[in-house]
Amino acid sequence: MSKRRLGPCITFFPQPTTLVASRAADGRVNVMTASWVGLVSKTPPTLGVSLHHGRLTYAQITASGSFTVNLVPVPLAVAADYCGLVSGRDQDKAAVAGLTLVPADLVAAPLVAEAPLNVECRLAGEVELGDYRLLLGEIVQIHALEKAFRADGTLDAAILNPLVYLGGIREYWSLGERKGVAYKDGKALLR
Amino acid sequence: MSKRRLGPCITFFPQPTTLVASRAADGRVNVMTASWVGLVSKTPPTLGVSLHHGRLTYAQITASGSFTVNLVPVPLAVAADYCGLVSGRDQDKAAVAGLTLVPADLVAAPLVAEAPLNVECRLAGEVELGDYRLLLGEIVQIHALEKAFRADGTLDAAILNPLVYLGGIREYWSLGERKGVAYKDGKALLR
Repeated sequence: MSKRRLGPCITFFPQPTTLVASRAADGRVNVMTASWVGLVSKTPPTLGVSLHHGRLTYAQITASGSFTVNLVPVPLAVAADYCGLVSGRDQDKAAVAGLTLVPADLVAAPLVAEAPLNVECRLAGEVELGDYRLLLGEIVQIHALEKAFRADGTLDAAILNPLVYLGGIREYWSLGERKGVAYKDGKALLR
Repeated sequence: MSKRRLGPCITFFPQPTTLVASRAADGRVNVMTASWVGLVSKTPPTLGVSLHHGRLTYAQITASGSFTVNLVPVPLAVAADYCGLVSGRDQDKAAVAGLTLVPADLVAAPLVAEAPLNVECRLAGEVELGDYRLLLGEIVQIHALEKAFRADGTLDAAILNPLVYLGGIREYWSLGERKGVAYKDGKALLR
């Protein structure tokens, strides 16, 4: 298949669309849109979030030692995009975007109630990467939307309805159809 | 919205489905399925890939100093799932899965021809996280499917057709519809 070279750049996807919430010492909360978020360990469960060192969120997380990662559902696309456009130093983004903040179980940072999945993290480490900082967060609690659970305890992704971010081309997409089951479909090729 | 607590775990998504390719000193190539992959810096462009330290791919990347990340399109779901089920120590996974390996421009690791996006990385660092290792790869070249480019030079995500992985619930999904444009739609909330 013929390809076009893009050089060194950051065209890469799909990625999650999330809102990272943090709380300052004075109680003030900031909510920042982030797609550079992903799992990095299972021992213990750990998320990595990378962001520019000049961000208010970076200052608040490193000072407070915690953050939450809140999954953005499709209907919250405009609110999430707004939370990536302005700084919490200038506006109370959660208020402007109409987001409801509720207390977490185990960390100071709040949860975004409208998110179908909330991940509570304790800051466990930091890696310097040029102008960016990869913050490592040990996952201490996860909350999932009750109505997305089927009777057998599994989660229905269509009800969670996560907004997918396509980096480089800067687009938000919904999920389409389930195309397979992991750790199962590939067995067809086992010899 | 009512939520159910999951405790500390790794239920988190959407994530990319990728094939990480690496080459041993003897020329042998291994291809491993990975969804714990994401951007971590723009200065310089850098990807992070986290994997268990016992993986053949970990040994080959740290010995050779390079890897490639190859985006899995929807039609390759079964092949990709297979490449996550078995070890390259036991089978020549690319051959069994019918994947075509072609030389990269700047690194020893090969590209998977069937992938609509290929990212060439030079190993730039490593972070120990329990039993896992986060490998930091400086992006030195990206290749994108020629036929996915529109006349104006933008990329059509529907033609790239990436397979989205939903971690925790272990499902593969396609993209649905474009729901928004980043760094633009949120301006509706600017005051």
